[in-house]
Amino acid sequence: MSDNPIIAIDAMGGDYGPSETVRGAVLAARAGGVTILLVGDEAEVQHALEAEHPESLPIKVVPSEGVVIEGEHPARALRSKPNSSIAVTVGLVKQGMADGFISMGSTGASMAASVFLLGKFPGLERPTLGGPFNGLAPKTTIIDIGANVDCKPVQLLNFGALGASFQRSYLGFNNPRVGLLSVGSEEGKGNKLVQEAFALFKSSGLNFVGNVEGNEMFTDKADVIVCDGFVGNVLLKYTEGMAEAAARYLAKILGIDSPAVKAISSLALAEEHGAAPLFGVNGLALAGHGRAKGEGIAASVLLAKHALEVNLVGHMREDLAAAQEHAGVLLSDDGEVQA
Amino acid sequence: MSDNPIIAIDAMGGDYGPSETVRGAVLAARAGGVTILLVGDEAEVQHALEAEHPESLPIKVVPSEGVVIEGEHPARALRSKPNSSIAVTVGLVKQGMADGFISMGSTGASMAASVFLLGKFPGLERPTLGGPFNGLAPKTTIIDIGANVDCKPVQLLNFGALGASFQRSYLGFNNPRVGLLSVGSEEGKGNKLVQEAFALFKSSGLNFVGNVEGNEMFTDKADVIVCDGFVGNVLLKYTEGMAEAAARYLAKILGIDSPAVKAISSLALAEEHGAAPLFGVNGLALAGHGRAKGEGIAASVLLAKHALEVNLVGHMREDLAAAQEHAGVLLSDDGEVQA
Repeated sequence: MSDNPIIAIDAMGGDYGPSETVRGAVLAARAGGVTILLVGDEAEVQHALEAEHPESLPIKVVPSEGVVIEGEHPARALRSKPNSSIAVTVGLVKQGMADGFISMGSTGASMAASVFLLGKFPGLERPTLGGPFNGLAPKTTIIDIGANVDCKPVQLLNFGALGASFQRSYLGFNNPRVGLLSVGSEEGKGNKLVQEAFALFKSSGLNFVGNVEGNEMFTDKADVIVCDGFVGNVLLKYTEGMAEAAARYLAKILGIDSPAVKAISSLALAEEHGAAPLFGVNGLALAGHGRAKGEGIAASVLLAKHALEVNLVGHMREDLAAAQEHAGVLLSDDGEVQA
Repeated sequence: MSDNPIIAIDAMGGDYGPSETVRGAVLAARAGGVTILLVGDEAEVQHALEAEHPESLPIKVVPSEGVVIEGEHPARALRSKPNSSIAVTVGLVKQGMADGFISMGSTGASMAASVFLLGKFPGLERPTLGGPFNGLAPKTTIIDIGANVDCKPVQLLNFGALGASFQRSYLGFNNPRVGLLSVGSEEGKGNKLVQEAFALFKSSGLNFVGNVEGNEMFTDKADVIVCDGFVGNVLLKYTEGMAEAAARYLAKILGIDSPAVKAISSLALAEEHGAAPLFGVNGLALAGHGRAKGEGIAASVLLAKHALEVNLVGHMREDLAAAQEHAGVLLSDDGEVQA
């Protein structure tokens, strides 16, 4: 390993394929301080790379065969395509050839490959996904945003612990406030899942601020807001749709050049940020929006470097174990509650 | 009963109490075509009424004792305060002294009083609440928006049938498209609740368009979007919070007088509309936002008149029974599935 971190990128992932992933890799490598491994169809990736005139940049191409596409069953697709770009990409991290990976392809495939090859944290049922996604609350982490749609109370606790760890080690918050998304502020308000999770959060050692209502996501009540992945994914996509619709609406009444149009359309952060870390796997894994372009991919490389510098994965594993011990939940390695 | 409809208003309900409810009643009565019964503390309501110089307007005051406030347990509060403003208001509908009622007080109390005194539709577990709430999709009904936070699949079917009936009879849609809010468009995507409800919807006779994702709430994919009341209430409040935060954000970068600020801050419809019908009770019941002012209350009176003209309640009862029969769900009067 060189002194610079080595990041593997699934060059075949995302809606635009190698042309944008390779362009992003070149942008990132030009900025310096990183070595990049581009994984994909060798001829196709080399062709895209040459078009970018990479000359002596620290970028290598690692060949793979086939791609797991959005909509395929991730586990089945990985079994039938063991040399697919995502499998080879994650394999580089497992073998210690790379320090972390980025994929803009199927998030389900990134997650499945990470669990199979890198393994997940003890006491965690499944990995989770979270992060800020609304430009009006750009430092508020929402977790889970789609990885786990049917949840048990202890899963929400795990999301809270991992989200707080992310907020602390990655975003630099001192003592992040953690809230449970609900339909009323008092204890006892909410669906059964939230009501039961509330008790676990109270004894978790987390800086728990209670329930947070939908409007309170914009009033700085909590730094980390926990919900099941069904609710989180609906909110993430609702935010994207609302930002687009609001921009169209303002363009109609104020003219397309109005600064308000640009300001409002930038409120959906997901595409701009490129990728976000998968929480709960034993290695740095960043999964991104299929629509990310070169700039988003280059930005993701910076995020990956930062995550490695702060030892995000190590802190998350420790913080999850601490919250579970505090809350007195004994879990098997599959995340089943033992007592 | 006069030729004009008679609307009972809980004059004590809402954040501003009699001053705004009475002002709203006077505004509505001045517009004509309606008789209004104002229910509340007699002295207080008379005082507020005289300040509005109602002269010969068709407004009468009906005395009541006490108020059920937000946060009280609705059923318990109704038992301990049988002459509270909401109990007397709903009682007027039960006795045939009024054709419908409006309350800006505790929605839980309006619902409980309606169920106790008017009764609910056969085959319905609990009444539901729905309607458009986002100015960017002003004719898209979201149902349930907070009345039922833990749902069974058959409840989602009921919400869909009642929402479609509302869309048809109240909003004038010919063959409203009904969708299930989910995290992916294909059948099989979603949490267990949505997956099971999908099968019921397919055989419901409703114009079912499948799953609708969060962003598709702005792309005219469906006229009625069904979700459990936890998700719906989070979205409703998230929309309010986002509209307020977006307006503050635009005011900061463009100046408070920018037309964009006004346009964006008006996107949360709930306060403007005043009140929305409770779905599933045997009588016209409108529950509103506590923050509604006189104009919102007057607007609600117009909504109530329209609902009576189109026989909203009668159509809803028929349409619910038809969808349940189509889907082959046999239900007890408590909404329990029999087969």
